[in-house]
Amino acid sequence: MVRTRFCDVFGVEYPIVQGGMQWVGRAELVSAVANAGGLGFITALTQPTPEDLAKEIARCREMTDRPFGVNLTILPSISPPPYAEYRDVIVEAGVPVVETAGANPAEHLPVFHKGGVKVLHKCTSVRHAVKAQELGVDGISIDGFECAGHPGEDDIPGLVLIPAAAKEITIPMIASGGFADARGLVAALALGADGINMGTRFLATAESPVHENVKRRLVAATERDTDLIFRPLGNTARVARNAVSEQVVSILDEGGKFEDVRELVAGVRGRKVYEVGDVDLGIWTAGMVQGLIHDVPTVAELIARIVSEAHALIKGRLVGVLA
Amino acid sequence: MVRTRFCDVFGVEYPIVQGGMQWVGRAELVSAVANAGGLGFITALTQPTPEDLAKEIARCREMTDRPFGVNLTILPSISPPPYAEYRDVIVEAGVPVVETAGANPAEHLPVFHKGGVKVLHKCTSVRHAVKAQELGVDGISIDGFECAGHPGEDDIPGLVLIPAAAKEITIPMIASGGFADARGLVAALALGADGINMGTRFLATAESPVHENVKRRLVAATERDTDLIFRPLGNTARVARNAVSEQVVSILDEGGKFEDVRELVAGVRGRKVYEVGDVDLGIWTAGMVQGLIHDVPTVAELIARIVSEAHALIKGRLVGVLA
Repeated sequence: MVRTRFCDVFGVEYPIVQGGMQWVGRAELVSAVANAGGLGFITALTQPTPEDLAKEIARCREMTDRPFGVNLTILPSISPPPYAEYRDVIVEAGVPVVETAGANPAEHLPVFHKGGVKVLHKCTSVRHAVKAQELGVDGISIDGFECAGHPGEDDIPGLVLIPAAAKEITIPMIASGGFADARGLVAALALGADGINMGTRFLATAESPVHENVKRRLVAATERDTDLIFRPLGNTARVARNAVSEQVVSILDEGGKFEDVRELVAGVRGRKVYEVGDVDLGIWTAGMVQGLIHDVPTVAELIARIVSEAHALIKGRLVGVLA
Repeated sequence: MVRTRFCDVFGVEYPIVQGGMQWVGRAELVSAVANAGGLGFITALTQPTPEDLAKEIARCREMTDRPFGVNLTILPSISPPPYAEYRDVIVEAGVPVVETAGANPAEHLPVFHKGGVKVLHKCTSVRHAVKAQELGVDGISIDGFECAGHPGEDDIPGLVLIPAAAKEITIPMIASGGFADARGLVAALALGADGINMGTRFLATAESPVHENVKRRLVAATERDTDLIFRPLGNTARVARNAVSEQVVSILDEGGKFEDVRELVAGVRGRKVYEVGDVDLGIWTAGMVQGLIHDVPTVAELIARIVSEAHALIKGRLVGVLA
C-alpha cells in the first residue's frame, strides 16, 4: 500500500494519476489505469464533439467499475471548442472528478461542484496554484519544467516548484512533470506532494493507444531528446526532438510567426505520429522523463512495480540512512 | 544520524556538501561546515595566488580540526590561472579531498591520487559523469538545471538528471542544484544520490562572508528571480535577477558579443555585490532554490535542522504512507 490524503479525497487506491493527454487519453488507457488502482483521465477534447465524449465515458465504464475522470483543457482560441457543452456532458455523465488545465477554472467551477464533480486543477506556478486554491478547487496538480506539453514560461523544475507550492497549498496536491518510477514518487512525497501525475510514462505502456513506433522511440530516447517549441510566442510546449521540432525552433528563433510553422506543427492534429507512427515526420509530445523509460509494461505491471519499489525504497534505503 | 557511503568514502559525518563558491568559499564558511559535520570546500581561485591558497588552508585548519576540501574549477581561458600550481598547493597541504569542476579532470587526477587526495568531480550531464567515473574519480557531484552558476547547456533538472545518472554511476554521487532543506535531501536520496551539495543555501548563513544585503535579498527572492546569462555564448550561468542581469540577457539576445557586456558583468569580480552589498548594481550568483530560503541561520543550525527534519520526514511522512 502507498496511500495519502489524495486517495481519500479522490477515491482511488494509489496516488498515481494519468492526467489529460491529447489523442492518448481514451477509454483503453484510462480504464487500465482505473483497474490498476490509479486515477486516469479521458481527454475531453480528443473527442470531436460533446456527444462523442459522452460515448467515450460510457465505453470506459464498460471497461472498469472503478472511478475515473475527464480532463478539460481550456486554451485561448479564436474559435474555441464548446467548452460549456463538454463540461455539461461531464457533469451529466456523473463523472466523479475533472482535471482542469490551461486557464483559470473559475467559470466552470460552480457547475462542476453543483454536479458533485471534484476538480483537480493543473498549473505550472505557485501563484496560479494559490489562485486556484482560493477559488475552491479540490486538488492541485503542480507541473514542473520537465513536463511534456505546456510547462509555462517560468521554467521552474519540480525540485524547487513542489516544495515552494507545498508551503502555500493546504489542499491535496500532486506533482507532475519528470515522474516515471518509484524514485520519483518517493521524491515527490518527500518534497511535499501527495502523489504524482505521469504522462510520458503512461504513453509507453501496452494499453496506450499509440503506434508502436512512438513507444519504441520513447524507450530509445534520452532525457536530452526534447525541444521547447513556441517559446517566442509565449506558449511554450515541450515535444519530442526530431527534424520537424528543430525546424520549428529554428524558424521561430529567427523571428518567424505561427503562420510560418502551422503546416509543420499540424502533425499531431493530423494524427500521423500517434496513429501512423511517423515519429520523425511530425510534432509530438514527450517529456524529459523519457530518459528514465526503458520498457513498455502493461499499466498494471507499471503501477504494481512503482508501489512495490516505493516500499523497498522507503523501508530499505531511506530508513537505512538513519541507522 | 543521516549516513550514506559518501560519508565513509569522504570521511564526514553527514552527506551534506558546501561546494566551491567563488568569493564565498573562504575559511570562515568552510570551517563552520566542517565543524557541523558537513564537507566544505575552500574555493582555490578566490585566492589571488597559490601562496594565498596555502595561507587560507592554514587559516581554515586553525578554525577546525575536522576534514575539509578545496575546489579547483578549471575554465577555458586565454590567460588561465596557474592551475598546476594551485593543484600542487592542495596536494602539498595534505588536503584530503578536492572538488574539480569546469572541465575534464584527467590532467590533474594522477597528481591528486598520488598525493592521497580524493577527487569529487562536479558535472552537469550523465555523459560527463560517466566519463569522469571511467577516469577514476572518487565521487560525482551531478549538477542540475536549477543550480546557481553554470548549469551547462542541456537544461536537465535534478528530478530527471539524478536518477538518469544513478543508473550509470557506481561510485558515490551527490546531487547539486535546487537543494536547501531536508525535503531536498530526502528527495535526492530517493532519486539515487548519496547526499547533496548546496551553494545558495550556504550563502544565506551567518558565517557566509558576504554583505547582509545579499542574505536579505536571498530571503526575499522567489524561485522565479534568477536569470540565465551568457546562453548565446554557450557558457550559460544562472545569476540573481536584477536590472543588470536583465540588461545582459537583452544585449546578448539581440546579438551582442561578450565585449558588449564585459563592463556589466565585472560586478562579481569587482566584489561590489558581495563586499559592498550593491545587490542591484552587479551580477551575482544565486540558484532557483532561493525561493525555498526564508532565514539566515548559522551553519550548525542549518545542518542540524536538515538532519533532524530528514529523520522526521522519513520516519513520519514516508513510512506513514505505507501504513
